[in-house]
Amino acid sequence: MSRIEAVRDEAQGNLADRLLLGLPAEAVLIDPDVTTSYANDMASFCPAGTPAVVVLPRTVEQVQHVMRTATELRVPVVPQGARTGLSGGANASEGCIVLSLTKMDRILEINPVDRIAVVEPGVVNATLSRAVEEHGLYYPPDPSSWEMCTIGGNIGTASGGLCCVKYGVTAEYVLGLEVVLADGRLMSTGRRTAKGVAGYDLTRLFVGSEGSLGIVVRAVLGLRPKPPEQLVLAAEFASAAAACDAVCRIMAGGHVPSLLELMDRTTVKAVNDMAHMGLPETTEALLLAAFDTPNPMPDLAAVGALCEAAGATQVVPADDATESELLLQGRRLSLPALEAVKGTTMIDDVCVPRSKLGAMLEGVERIAEKYGLTIGVCAHAGDGNTHPTVCFDAQDPDESRRARESFDEIMALGLELGGTITGEHGVGVLKREWLAREIGPVGVEMQRAVKQVFDPLGILNPGKLF
Amino acid sequence: MSRIEAVRDEAQGNLADRLLLGLPAEAVLIDPDVTTSYANDMASFCPAGTPAVVVLPRTVEQVQHVMRTATELRVPVVPQGARTGLSGGANASEGCIVLSLTKMDRILEINPVDRIAVVEPGVVNATLSRAVEEHGLYYPPDPSSWEMCTIGGNIGTASGGLCCVKYGVTAEYVLGLEVVLADGRLMSTGRRTAKGVAGYDLTRLFVGSEGSLGIVVRAVLGLRPKPPEQLVLAAEFASAAAACDAVCRIMAGGHVPSLLELMDRTTVKAVNDMAHMGLPETTEALLLAAFDTPNPMPDLAAVGALCEAAGATQVVPADDATESELLLQGRRLSLPALEAVKGTTMIDDVCVPRSKLGAMLEGVERIAEKYGLTIGVCAHAGDGNTHPTVCFDAQDPDESRRARESFDEIMALGLELGGTITGEHGVGVLKREWLAREIGPVGVEMQRAVKQVFDPLGILNPGKLF
Repeated sequence: MSRIEAVRDEAQGNLADRLLLGLPAEAVLIDPDVTTSYANDMASFCPAGTPAVVVLPRTVEQVQHVMRTATELRVPVVPQGARTGLSGGANASEGCIVLSLTKMDRILEINPVDRIAVVEPGVVNATLSRAVEEHGLYYPPDPSSWEMCTIGGNIGTASGGLCCVKYGVTAEYVLGLEVVLADGRLMSTGRRTAKGVAGYDLTRLFVGSEGSLGIVVRAVLGLRPKPPEQLVLAAEFASAAAACDAVCRIMAGGHVPSLLELMDRTTVKAVNDMAHMGLPETTEALLLAAFDTPNPMPDLAAVGALCEAAGATQVVPADDATESELLLQGRRLSLPALEAVKGTTMIDDVCVPRSKLGAMLEGVERIAEKYGLTIGVCAHAGDGNTHPTVCFDAQDPDESRRARESFDEIMALGLELGGTITGEHGVGVLKREWLAREIGPVGVEMQRAVKQVFDPLGILNPGKLF
Repeated sequence: MSRIEAVRDEAQGNLADRLLLGLPAEAVLIDPDVTTSYANDMASFCPAGTPAVVVLPRTVEQVQHVMRTATELRVPVVPQGARTGLSGGANASEGCIVLSLTKMDRILEINPVDRIAVVEPGVVNATLSRAVEEHGLYYPPDPSSWEMCTIGGNIGTASGGLCCVKYGVTAEYVLGLEVVLADGRLMSTGRRTAKGVAGYDLTRLFVGSEGSLGIVVRAVLGLRPKPPEQLVLAAEFASAAAACDAVCRIMAGGHVPSLLELMDRTTVKAVNDMAHMGLPETTEALLLAAFDTPNPMPDLAAVGALCEAAGATQVVPADDATESELLLQGRRLSLPALEAVKGTTMIDDVCVPRSKLGAMLEGVERIAEKYGLTIGVCAHAGDGNTHPTVCFDAQDPDESRRARESFDEIMALGLELGGTITGEHGVGVLKREWLAREIGPVGVEMQRAVKQVFDPLGILNPGKLF
């Protein structure tokens, strides 16, 4: 053992010993085979370090102990949920404490009169969604990883999903938080009431902060009454431009679809190849629109007519909820299906004003051609939130380079069109150079200063965002 | 002229001269008769200083000049809209620059595809609401002062209104901002897209910050499609408790009313006395529920049945939109009508979990009795947001003291019930001692540190919030 290794091992041993003063043995993992399995989330091209230790606290007090220890020893802390993120926001730093919140997974309260749920951060999105449904309630945010991802992770990245065009993103549903600060102190933010404006909105500051300001240990979430099951209409188009035109007509027409999703030909084919869904492959773009109102028929008919006016070659309403769900399954499989095309993907998350959706898709096609790459696009079209997905062979260095360059060029295009580099996936490691381009030097300076307030030692998820 | 007065006048002259380097003469007011008229908003019991000067900029550059000058000379700046606030948040500090944004009143863009409006801060809420309506769009926030108050003021206090039970508060509609910082630099926050999570949510940090972090000079606002006109149902109850029970049944029943308002007997009588509205005075509480869906009848019928189950003595649906509007007029007149009872009011703004609404109203009644005062209650009942309004004679020192004490006791009760001291009016001067009680010492420390980031010299609306 070299001197450096010896010093490192001693530091690690010391760290683990200190952590064990406030955590049970089974909550402190130091076996390198185990800890390295916590190094990455699901993003490509994002470097990760090796954690010194992984902790799995079950109580607020244990999280406080972890943060006090980290502060005393000046050790970086990387909070993690289910590590389904797509920007490297949960990737380990070298020698860090990985703070996995997955064991804090209790639903503490569901209140149908106040329409709130109180949860710990490790509750899985789907678990909460199903639990509130039993009370006739609805927790809308539905990222595509909803069967695995945690509410804490959703809060960290302000996740979205298919629901957003009608119901908005996670941020809209976080009313109040309990947060363990970098030094281990506990702070409450927000409220459990429907409204409240007492002081600065620190709740929203924490939502989307990617674990860089504090550790969320409890959340009060707003709920809605469960709407009727949605009915989906599928429309095929001879060009992506025509489908985007339909989106603009639908939204300008005052409709409020419960989803409005677009899949391009590449995506449709990938989904069929993977799951034999029988989606129509002869079209350039497939648009899915749905309504979850008590009587969706007039809206569906009007939207069908708008699609035809925009040049749809075929408009097919689903017969019932089962057929609707099948179409949505297809949409939900888009990302894994595109991943199967060449083995690896880089998934962009550019959101543009929806009036620029057509220009965005046209530009992505141009970029794919320029770099000789397959780039499939699925999009939360009603929100202008596109996921251009670069398919490439990670074993091929030249293709990998082109993938990375095209990925960046897509973000540049998004900014040029008045959009943002990330609609719902977050900045993480993947887009940190791009954050500065989007928010400008004054924005970066003020954001860094805010970070400094909450994390003066820079131990909270360092190297993310900035 | 005393030496002190001479020094003060010289300083004021110097300040005005410096401001005139970047502002036209008509935008710089120094006549004391004029400037003192800008000293107060509409709150009672809130001390205000005398402004040294009032400026009325028309451009972003002029606002930047004002802030640069204020920073150089270390002069406090109090931003103002229409001064309809109810917490003293826009009251002048002694010797300050009052920065009135009322002349920056242009609507720069209304975009029906992107469903956004871009506005300057001095646009009057009603002006914007009517302008977007012409495009088939809807800007929901409707504080009772909506015919006078400005969007900038609404952003400063995160104002609510009758719409909130379905549509939420102002914060929900602010997508992006341009802000002049304390030192005169310009910063953009947020986005003009439907979604976006790039970096910390500074937009929401500014919403509700009462002008204490920067000067909002432009806002991108989200819009919705204009809903059908709402149809109102009125229900009378023999007790406030029964009306609150009805509210809980309606919300637990999964209904989504477009408003759900409560007026107690004192309020109903006050409105009749003022405007001869013919509201039913024989009841203890009047509940107004409305739906703005394409077919409101089934919901209205179900809500009527729930009211009866809760003990309503009479349930009267409005015949049409005109009758509905008349009932709402009555509700909107509540605060001025209660003011007429004894000449002066203190309007509380406590929001409790709606399951605690009954306990809140019962407690207010107890407090009114204890202090021998008339306290009328109107409430955005569906949100649990109550406005217990203490009526008193400001000429009577003992009654004034009792008013102030009862006002505080109402806030204490709200906190005890898990609520907040302010649902929509803000903290301002009126409730700053109470903010600390609500958010606790750690919260205050972190909020002050955030303030320090944006306003290191403490010149932005000093003495408010903290």
